[in-house]
Amino acid sequence: MHKKPTLDAKVARQAFEHALASHEPEFGKFFLARLFGCEFEYTNDTCQVSFEVKDFMLNPQGGLHGGVTAFVLDISMGHLLRKKSGPGTTLEMKVQYAAPARDGRLTATGQFIRHGRGISYLRSEMVDDKGELIAFATSTWKSLTNPVTK
Amino acid sequence: MHKKPTLDAKVARQAFEHALASHEPEFGKFFLARLFGCEFEYTNDTCQVSFEVKDFMLNPQGGLHGGVTAFVLDISMGHLLRKKSGPGTTLEMKVQYAAPARDGRLTATGQFIRHGRGISYLRSEMVDDKGELIAFATSTWKSLTNPVTK
Amino acid sequence: MHKKPTLDAKVARQAFEHALASHEPEFGKFFLARLFGCEFEYTNDTCQVSFEVKDFMLNPQGGLHGGVTAFVLDISMGHLLRKKSGPGTTLEMKVQYAAPARDGRLTATGQFIRHGRGISYLRSEMVDDKGELIAFATSTWKSLTNPVTK
Amino acid sequence: MHKKPTLDAKVARQAFEHALASHEPEFGKFFLARLFGCEFEYTNDTCQVSFEVKDFMLNPQGGLHGGVTAFVLDISMGHLLRKKSGPGTTLEMKVQYAAPARDGRLTATGQFIRHGRGISYLRSEMVDDKGELIAFATSTWKSLTNPVTK
Repeated sequence: MHKKPTLDAKVARQAFEHALASHEPEFGKFFLARLFGCEFEYTNDTCQVSFEVKDFMLNPQGGLHGGVTAFVLDISMGHLLRKKSGPGTTLEMKVQYAAPARDGRLTATGQFIRHGRGISYLRSEMVDDKGELIAFATSTWKSLTNPVTK
Repeated sequence: MHKKPTLDAKVARQAFEHALASHEPEFGKFFLARLFGCEFEYTNDTCQVSFEVKDFMLNPQGGLHGGVTAFVLDISMGHLLRKKSGPGTTLEMKVQYAAPARDGRLTATGQFIRHGRGISYLRSEMVDDKGELIAFATSTWKSLTNPVTK
Repeated sequence: MHKKPTLDAKVARQAFEHALASHEPEFGKFFLARLFGCEFEYTNDTCQVSFEVKDFMLNPQGGLHGGVTAFVLDISMGHLLRKKSGPGTTLEMKVQYAAPARDGRLTATGQFIRHGRGISYLRSEMVDDKGELIAFATSTWKSLTNPVTK
Repeated sequence: MHKKPTLDAKVARQAFEHALASHEPEFGKFFLARLFGCEFEYTNDTCQVSFEVKDFMLNPQGGLHGGVTAFVLDISMGHLLRKKSGPGTTLEMKVQYAAPARDGRLTATGQFIRHGRGISYLRSEMVDDKGELIAFATSTWKSLTNPVTK
């Protein structure tokens, strides 16, 4: 059994104040992305989102909460889609959790499986700073700039 | 196009201070569950997690961020599993997003598809206060209290 | 270890000749649906597809092959969609396998999670003749009769 | 609308007789793998399963049935797992359908996302003979040779 996490209030408060002061209702800058300390880097074919695990992000068992993992994987794919062909909405996402993460810097790299005009498939891998796989996601998106009926 | 969300700093700060003051490293009480204002209710076969959408939870398009949806769905299933047979770890989760949510109270109801000693399947539906479906999730869990090799 | 299946050639040949003689390129009647002996029943909200497990459908471990399970779950959802709003195409499907099936009659019941004009979500449960869950599927469909760009 | 498929009975019969004559209750050789004409090739890290689309494999809309796609993707992953660490059972599989296939030779290449002692994640890509993506799958497996409780 892992030691119960003790939350460092100063770190959480710093993240919160940073988010409050710097967020904008924009891709890459919205409040939760700021709160989790997400940093964005684009190549031609990928969007990398990296962040530092902080103890306010942990689950009751002391590992990074799967919801945070899902959040970061989601934005690595959604931000790539938006960069390449405008904003979209997630129809569905599946996340497979490969290993728990307790600290350090994690990076999710989103890329296309198939880039369509209306429907796109993306995937993203999250690794830790040693390159070990933390989680793997696939998703289906509907572009908002094309006439797709939902 | 929806109006860009303007974050109400007072609401966000209240949520943050509440989370900081009241969290414990326990199921139902950990920091992020408190930050998102999750309330838990159990029946014999379900775990219901409800929360109020607040504007700090929105994506850049002004809807509830899919990562928050995934987070709440995840805990509705994980908390049920833990209640019935001890803590588990998510092997995978898939979320289908049925409709955007912009405000109001949302409730995710987790239940078992199959409850096994080592491997369990769960599902959860999130609805808004009119009962409209927001999202549907299925997941696969590994119990931590049984000798499952990973 | 289960006994290796011995294929009954007469049963397989009967299924094959039946399929060849009776198939039509139509929903409910196409060759593979006939080969697997699928029978269709509709209620207002569901499509039930039932079939008898035969030994030519088994995997090398002597259980019903997961691909056959996926096939039947898929058609229980696709046939329901087609009945309610015209043909569609599967964007994605996820199947969770709850228990192996070795013989007897199985029934997959497809229903909607969300029925949209362009995008629909469906789910299907496969049970054996004692009502025990064999598999659970969810899927995302794009209607072909509405102007959805792919 | 695509022309309704007309089934070539000779081709179907040939596939059936071949399967009946040559199948063994073994990985790579079981009846359905033979019926669909699957050929297996292993590298150190992958299992490639290729087959020729024949018209008895089509859906009522004239494309390769998604259940056949799922079947071949499944075995490309299950056969790799079995080759590397003994037989396993699929806990779940998700397939995303990228493009319809109507004829020609298709190849599914299974590989590991994470190879564990008890739980493994795999993925597989199916492409046509021009390398165009037909479908993408991810799955979760439980090894049968390790003491995993289900």
